Amino acid sequence: MLEELKERVYRANMELPRYGLVTFTWGNVSEIDKKSGYFAIKPSGVKYEDLTPEDMVIMDLFGNKIEGRYNPSSDTATHIVLYKAFPKIGGIVHTHSSWATSWAQAGRNLPCYGTTHADYIYGEVPCAESLKGSDFDEYEKTTGLKIVEAFKDRDYEAVPAVLCRNHGPFTWGKDGMEAVHNAVVLEEVCKMAARCEQINPQVQPAPQELQDKHYFRKHGANAYYGQR
Amino acid sequence: MLEELKERVYRANMELPRYGLVTFTWGNVSEIDKKSGYFAIKPSGVKYEDLTPEDMVIMDLFGNKIEGRYNPSSDTATHIVLYKAFPKIGGIVHTHSSWATSWAQAGRNLPCYGTTHADYIYGEVPCAESLKGSDFDEYEKTTGLKIVEAFKDRDYEAVPAVLCRNHGPFTWGKDGMEAVHNAVVLEEVCKMAARCEQINPQVQPAPQELQDKHYFRKHGANAYYGQR
Amino acid sequence: MLEELKERVYRANMELPRYGLVTFTWGNVSEIDKKSGYFAIKPSGVKYEDLTPEDMVIMDLFGNKIEGRYNPSSDTATHIVLYKAFPKIGGIVHTHSSWATSWAQAGRNLPCYGTTHADYIYGEVPCAESLKGSDFDEYEKTTGLKIVEAFKDRDYEAVPAVLCRNHGPFTWGKDGMEAVHNAVVLEEVCKMAARCEQINPQVQPAPQELQDKHYFRKHGANAYYGQR
Amino acid sequence: MLEELKERVYRANMELPRYGLVTFTWGNVSEIDKKSGYFAIKPSGVKYEDLTPEDMVIMDLFGNKIEGRYNPSSDTATHIVLYKAFPKIGGIVHTHSSWATSWAQAGRNLPCYGTTHADYIYGEVPCAESLKGSDFDEYEKTTGLKIVEAFKDRDYEAVPAVLCRNHGPFTWGKDGMEAVHNAVVLEEVCKMAARCEQINPQVQPAPQELQDKHYFRKHGANAYYGQR
Repeated sequence: MLEELKERVYRANMELPRYGLVTFTWGNVSEIDKKSGYFAIKPSGVKYEDLTPEDMVIMDLFGNKIEGRYNPSSDTATHIVLYKAFPKIGGIVHTHSSWATSWAQAGRNLPCYGTTHADYIYGEVPCAESLKGSDFDEYEKTTGLKIVEAFKDRDYEAVPAVLCRNHGPFTWGKDGMEAVHNAVVLEEVCKMAARCEQINPQVQPAPQELQDKHYFRKHGANAYYGQR
Repeated sequence: MLEELKERVYRANMELPRYGLVTFTWGNVSEIDKKSGYFAIKPSGVKYEDLTPEDMVIMDLFGNKIEGRYNPSSDTATHIVLYKAFPKIGGIVHTHSSWATSWAQAGRNLPCYGTTHADYIYGEVPCAESLKGSDFDEYEKTTGLKIVEAFKDRDYEAVPAVLCRNHGPFTWGKDGMEAVHNAVVLEEVCKMAARCEQINPQVQPAPQELQDKHYFRKHGANAYYGQR
Repeated sequence: MLEELKERVYRANMELPRYGLVTFTWGNVSEIDKKSGYFAIKPSGVKYEDLTPEDMVIMDLFGNKIEGRYNPSSDTATHIVLYKAFPKIGGIVHTHSSWATSWAQAGRNLPCYGTTHADYIYGEVPCAESLKGSDFDEYEKTTGLKIVEAFKDRDYEAVPAVLCRNHGPFTWGKDGMEAVHNAVVLEEVCKMAARCEQINPQVQPAPQELQDKHYFRKHGANAYYGQR
Repeated sequence: MLEELKERVYRANMELPRYGLVTFTWGNVSEIDKKSGYFAIKPSGVKYEDLTPEDMVIMDLFGNKIEGRYNPSSDTATHIVLYKAFPKIGGIVHTHSSWATSWAQAGRNLPCYGTTHADYIYGEVPCAESLKGSDFDEYEKTTGLKIVEAFKDRDYEAVPAVLCRNHGPFTWGKDGMEAVHNAVVLEEVCKMAARCEQINPQVQPAPQELQDKHYFRKHGANAYYGQR
């Protein structure tokens, strides 16, 4: 059942160690099948080198396991909140990649300092609030709700990434592979932003016009980057 | 004798260069056989590329060599102190891994800034004091005693790592491989903590509730991470 | 047509991922054939692992595509401006390499702190201004004009590199491969300059005499480095 | 002639790219044959991937080429000064390795912050002065003289490394391979010292007693590290 989806999610998961975004089992990718409403996700705590397409767990959006011999990622409830709140996305990634996690731990929004950022992400990447008190009763679900809250005045399609305070990044996209692509972009721009502030502590975000130019060179009706 | 132990300790040692934690011969892993009270440890100054399982040295807890053609690691006396003081551990790792050693040289306890840390280590990693004066008469043994002193108000099972001031890290676990795993975790969280402080010099440790949540998601009776 | 040129430009492009200067498709190399006035350039948005020599696009200096099934790099108009303004260069590289881009985002000229820099680049590398207002009507062309403006009092042969503010580096040379070589040099000296300022925030540029000595050891009539 | 020496120097040179200490041709190793007074050194500007043992150039201490089809390294005159001034050394390395060069550019002596440093280098690594005025008439020779000057109150055997201001490191040892080993050590301790100062800007050098202990654990009559 949904063999193709499992194969795709498997391959997207395997990109995470390839791009150096995960140590041990610290990451997961999911992708949703819009017709059935089911999504495939990495099993919890299984090593990347042991992973096979059949190991992917099929879940529904109520949190029921539809198929799979393993438990799904412990972050499954966060993925469910995001699929429900952000209906146009098709894939989600969570990692503890080093630079994005350092920004998340620092508790700061990531400013847009240049075109590498603006090519993929329109404006700053928000840092979602830490959880408090009763939030911990449903930890992974509430993590998702804090992300949604951080996007109440933001376009989740134009900003396909978030930093969860004291935790790490989530990214998304039209499918699992695009979400992985955005996770690589986020790690790279987090690295360059930290170094940029080291080189010039008074640096300001890139001019809005430049951000507009680069974002819309690649996105929307007037895009002209690549082979169209 | 104890062939399986030597094989296990050999394999755990070979993980150190694989994870980039050692340059040259700057590291060692040991594991103890609780029944016999003997432990196997890397020989001193032998290159990782030349190492074989038979090269592992079998020692007892009085510091006598039981078997092996090589001298044991020069840090053997430190391992002995730790096995005696921390009876529930089964494996120990010492490295000069770059970020953990930088923190050790900086002489600071490592704060817990996020969930990557809290998933494995409950609270800050202490920095054990430098040695002074007559401490140097039995240098490696006293290094162990300083570590034990740093844990007099701490739970060595919940904090499986220490930074020895001006020296480098030791980590431990239920066996050699888990101690290596903790050495990788420590290096990663040391790296992210330094970068996190660079990004936000006023950063505070992660809220205690978040630390509790993540640590107990993976440890103790109510753990639910992974395949149980 | 111009098969040899396409082969050369293909090979120069493939050096970018080999030296770790590009993630995804964030870079491009071109080289010009001085006789015909045509140049070959990487196609836009095509992955390096899929690239073949035949994919290189042949363009003229008026922006017309002469040959090729793909669209040329979206930065083609910048390359054209540079070939016209800097007639002695034969190859151009653009990347988003991490350290050079961090300096570009920081909006600072790169000082010459040592001989690694002085061996290849005579004096500081300028940071070209950001674009404003109507500049965005012809974005890539104006990017080129801002570079040329940054060189109005500078020798583009002696300084074969520029940092475009909020964007990233361009480098050049007598052919595509030398331009790649200079891109590697620029990344390395950007990295060392940032670390050097971290180690000594009061550091001053290298003495002019030392810069002269190293630059002219490798360049001009009295050069004596290498096999001549 | 001296085939074995050329083979040894070739192999020592090839360790530099293996340990990530050189980009392009930015490094060289030499080793001297004490009987003949001849030394073998890397040819100038030849790529590591093209190098063969036969390419090594045999020189005497007067700067005459004894054998070899290539020009010797442009740093040959510096090597000659060091072999003459430091009669107990048998091999010399020069690189532009990233962290050591960053310290050299910063113009600071490298403090000893821990045991990794103290295991190999007794006390701080001096930063030799930049050249001035007429120094440039015999640039490479004077570079050597500035190094010797930096050691007028220092033991070159106990401190087998120097940082040449605005330039980069030289290291030495009993043969070429030990000099390479010290180049790796220097790069590693330069990296950790910079990070250590970042983590604790008020950090002080390691206590002298600890430096003594570690240095003499590995060196001199009472050494007990390794297999003796």
